[in-house]
Amino acid sequence: MQTIHLVLTGLGNLGRRFCEILMEKDAELQRRYGLAFSMVGVADSRGTAYDPTGLNLAEVVRLKRDGHSVRAYSGVGRTDRTTTDLVAEAEADVLLEATPVNLSQGAEPGLTCIRTAMQRRMHVVTPNKGPLVVAYRELRDLALQQGVRFLFDGTVAGGLPALNLGRRELRGAIIKRIEAVPNLVTGYVMDMMTEGLSWDEATARARQEGVLESDPVWDLEGWDAAAKLVILANVVLDMSATLEDVDRTGITGLSVDQLTKARERQQRYRLLARAETRPDGDYVLSVSPVPLAPEHPFGRLGRKQMGVAFTTDIYGTIVAIIDEPNPVPSSATMLRDLLDIYVVER
Amino acid sequence: MQTIHLVLTGLGNLGRRFCEILMEKDAELQRRYGLAFSMVGVADSRGTAYDPTGLNLAEVVRLKRDGHSVRAYSGVGRTDRTTTDLVAEAEADVLLEATPVNLSQGAEPGLTCIRTAMQRRMHVVTPNKGPLVVAYRELRDLALQQGVRFLFDGTVAGGLPALNLGRRELRGAIIKRIEAVPNLVTGYVMDMMTEGLSWDEATARARQEGVLESDPVWDLEGWDAAAKLVILANVVLDMSATLEDVDRTGITGLSVDQLTKARERQQRYRLLARAETRPDGDYVLSVSPVPLAPEHPFGRLGRKQMGVAFTTDIYGTIVAIIDEPNPVPSSATMLRDLLDIYVVER
Repeated sequence: MQTIHLVLTGLGNLGRRFCEILMEKDAELQRRYGLAFSMVGVADSRGTAYDPTGLNLAEVVRLKRDGHSVRAYSGVGRTDRTTTDLVAEAEADVLLEATPVNLSQGAEPGLTCIRTAMQRRMHVVTPNKGPLVVAYRELRDLALQQGVRFLFDGTVAGGLPALNLGRRELRGAIIKRIEAVPNLVTGYVMDMMTEGLSWDEATARARQEGVLESDPVWDLEGWDAAAKLVILANVVLDMSATLEDVDRTGITGLSVDQLTKARERQQRYRLLARAETRPDGDYVLSVSPVPLAPEHPFGRLGRKQMGVAFTTDIYGTIVAIIDEPNPVPSSATMLRDLLDIYVVER
Repeated sequence: MQTIHLVLTGLGNLGRRFCEILMEKDAELQRRYGLAFSMVGVADSRGTAYDPTGLNLAEVVRLKRDGHSVRAYSGVGRTDRTTTDLVAEAEADVLLEATPVNLSQGAEPGLTCIRTAMQRRMHVVTPNKGPLVVAYRELRDLALQQGVRFLFDGTVAGGLPALNLGRRELRGAIIKRIEAVPNLVTGYVMDMMTEGLSWDEATARARQEGVLESDPVWDLEGWDAAAKLVILANVVLDMSATLEDVDRTGITGLSVDQLTKARERQQRYRLLARAETRPDGDYVLSVSPVPLAPEHPFGRLGRKQMGVAFTTDIYGTIVAIIDEPNPVPSSATMLRDLLDIYVVER
């Protein structure tokens, strides 16, 4: 039995649910993979808790569910240490970085957490798009230099292994085109409007259901989809793209009329992220709402579904779709990445 | 630059096309991965050719395209060595085993080739279902014992990375159900009949187009789909299943009437392979033609499409579909597996 020591920064929806998955699967992971995971440190925006002998995950989950900070964790909760302090000081094998995206603040504190962890020779697993969009190459190179793994399959399309598909299952192929529907909120809002709700009603409903987060512009103007496309482009297509390289149109300009007319033609609108080859071999990146015919791979995507399609030279066209009825799969990507580090392939 | 020495047994459609892919991608693979592949030995049913300094792939391809055996390869072609002799004698890093399935003959010569290669500490890559169906656990254990890799992603659903998805992208999950459409011929024949052709006309057309191979029973009675399901079950679900464990119904009993009635209801028949959890936790394996509604993940599969769907506890439901307009993707799975062995993940 190998014991892996973890530090988790960020205890929002993803982080807290990951703790729940780890609790539920503890015995199963020991039995199937011979791996015991011990959470030694956790941090939220208001404090930290660190215990080298392992925290009680049930207690962490209880505190967060009750709206408290982990600084209230009995005995080892701290108010005088920040998220980045924890990463700089904790002894652990892996950093799980799940703080919010925060692109407006230079992707902090995620970026500093990841750099610090790598410098301290910890592997890094993150579903946080921010640091990837801002500094993918720097972080990839730092990981290589430090001899640690850097995995982030959860940054694109929730629980769908979109990046892993592109970067390892399509090895040896030239990818001619990527199409993706990596954002749930926009599909939800457009479907609601197609069913007769106004823009305000549809976005209010999305907010009520917890699909639309605090900053609606991020999702509805297509920034979220663009960020995911940039990650796909840099990781799978080996580009050096930034958000500015994406020709981006959000869904705020769409009218109910456009949506209902599309429905009459059996089409369904989705915010489509695309990387397409130009004649000179470069890729053009775009995000825009597109009416999709039923024959299109994403023409029948439901409200809780995301997808990615790769058109290749030697593997034909491969489409993958996830049905994600709740946020568990997005959290579970951290487990996928963790097991990728520690389960030996043979 | 690392040079990898290969031996390829079987030069039918898959084997020959693999040689073509390797020729076309030689410079690209050196540039992208620092890997140079040298084919030192090839075998077909009538002879072998072996040159430790590397065979000329263009010459191998030319001979096969012209209907010759590689025993006619200038200088090093042999008529006195068999496929298994070549594997026993050649110095190479990897065996690519692409002889025909031959379950009626104990999966030979593939099974002996694989055993011999592993005993000689060669990695093994194979798209040949036969040895997997007959002896998966034995071969897996032998590979472990010998410290070699054993990869066979091409055995299920052509170029779709169905096995890789199930065994590594879903790590940590409990798989509740697998549904797959892993066979192209049956879909082709059923679609033709739906369009008004009789059984005899539809199968004749499939034969003309090269979709239906010499032994029609293997495909049409569902044995091919059952073999793929057995491999999925053993590799992804850790079962010890055999062909006898699959409740199998082929498409030979289907009437034009059933097919056209399904079409009137907007349904499409596909030969569906399923692994479903029983209340006691075991899986039930079945293969049968099923009319699929448009909402079903495979309800709109085209004639050149195959798919697999995994219903899981923590990754939601993940569906992958390949559009495989020609047999190139199936051959290319050998390249996928090869790169899996030699490209270091980081």
